[in-house]
Amino acid sequence: MDKPQNIYDNEKFYKDYRDMREKGLNANELIEIPIMKDMLPDLKGKRILDLGCGNGGMSKYFIEKGAKSVLAIDLSSNMINEAKEKNNAENITYVVLGMEDISKIEGKFDIVFSSLAFHYVKDYDKLVKDIYNLLDENGILIYSQEHPIATASKYHKEMKSYIFLDEKRYYVVSNYNENGERKMFWNVDGVIKYHRNFSYTINTLIQNKYNLLEVRESTASEEAIKLNSKYENQNDRPYFLFIKASK
Amino acid sequence: MDKPQNIYDNEKFYKDYRDMREKGLNANELIEIPIMKDMLPDLKGKRILDLGCGNGGMSKYFIEKGAKSVLAIDLSSNMINEAKEKNNAENITYVVLGMEDISKIEGKFDIVFSSLAFHYVKDYDKLVKDIYNLLDENGILIYSQEHPIATASKYHKEMKSYIFLDEKRYYVVSNYNENGERKMFWNVDGVIKYHRNFSYTINTLIQNKYNLLEVRESTASEEAIKLNSKYENQNDRPYFLFIKASK
Repeated sequence: MDKPQNIYDNEKFYKDYRDMREKGLNANELIEIPIMKDMLPDLKGKRILDLGCGNGGMSKYFIEKGAKSVLAIDLSSNMINEAKEKNNAENITYVVLGMEDISKIEGKFDIVFSSLAFHYVKDYDKLVKDIYNLLDENGILIYSQEHPIATASKYHKEMKSYIFLDEKRYYVVSNYNENGERKMFWNVDGVIKYHRNFSYTINTLIQNKYNLLEVRESTASEEAIKLNSKYENQNDRPYFLFIKASK
Repeated sequence: MDKPQNIYDNEKFYKDYRDMREKGLNANELIEIPIMKDMLPDLKGKRILDLGCGNGGMSKYFIEKGAKSVLAIDLSSNMINEAKEKNNAENITYVVLGMEDISKIEGKFDIVFSSLAFHYVKDYDKLVKDIYNLLDENGILIYSQEHPIATASKYHKEMKSYIFLDEKRYYVVSNYNENGERKMFWNVDGVIKYHRNFSYTINTLIQNKYNLLEVRESTASEEAIKLNSKYENQNDRPYFLFIKASK
């Protein structure tokens, strides 16, 4: 099997990424996380699996909201070390493990959660199959990923993702129906993400027997726009797609 | 209540539209209809409601495939007259009726079908509610509409829907999360369609208790591309979205 990309253990990438996240006021904090929190059910007593947990911010949040236990995994040792430092708690177990290997996990979960990590995984069908097996009866999968309109185009390094026509911003989109690898410049060159169009994303869940509960596309709250006016652009083309489905 | 737009009874529009359809080799025949046919279940003995039936081509097809009966409605008398002339059959009933008024219909159906008409309807929530009531137990809704990436932007009349960057075609998209009316030039000026993003389209079905069975986005077959090479563009940005859901 191909070794999964581990970009968060690339030194330059990790430093730049950490700098960006620590500045706050970025799209994760202002747009993505508020929507994810809004989609979560009552967490009291729940066993949660956090896939691609990063620095553990959400894992800690789950415990604060009454979750019984959290198993939080990430492929990157950098991220897991940071999580153990910053977001430790008695009922959180942090483990260095890629999402490609979750079939090794034993036990069942009430909620499988993943924030902005699925677009790094090559085999989405295997991933949702593995998650299905880890969910207890009526368990819920909630995840966010980059929006298919945002991941579609095969950009050149120098290319802008939008243009202005008559002073109005238009995003550009191409190769939308061509699912697969996208190489891009993000902190470092050659970061690999996987584009999957909307129909493939949804049908794979249906074919794997999930019940689709909700789909969201990112919008920015008035508060977020006040803090950073550029996020008005969510109206033109959302950054993120959110999916909630039950076993 | 607002009177629904009846653009197919506009003389110039209808003439140009008919010319386009009669030339064949257009996106309806080459792309949309083959996908719709592929999504249909076995039609033997089925009672079918065809919403926005146009010239009745599909209604006739249903009977040829063994359907028990077809009730076919369209807002436009032009279209219904043409359907009665060209695609008459014993078990097809053609009626001039807008999709806004289907709650007046009595009886139950096994399949509610609609080809490229939903994007003319303002109140999608009411439409899918009304259809739910007309479906018999386990009845199926199958419909196509313009793709949300295609309907999103508020175009100027003079504006192209795509641009070239480094000799590669990119479609432009804006206002994606702004659901609602879009006025456009299509044969005549001021044709009104309604843009609805993916999440609203899908969530409205879920909230109205449908089980989502399948979502498709248009691609062109090799044969279609051989007949008209421009339809390679479906790879870059699909024209149509298809949804199949059951009661």
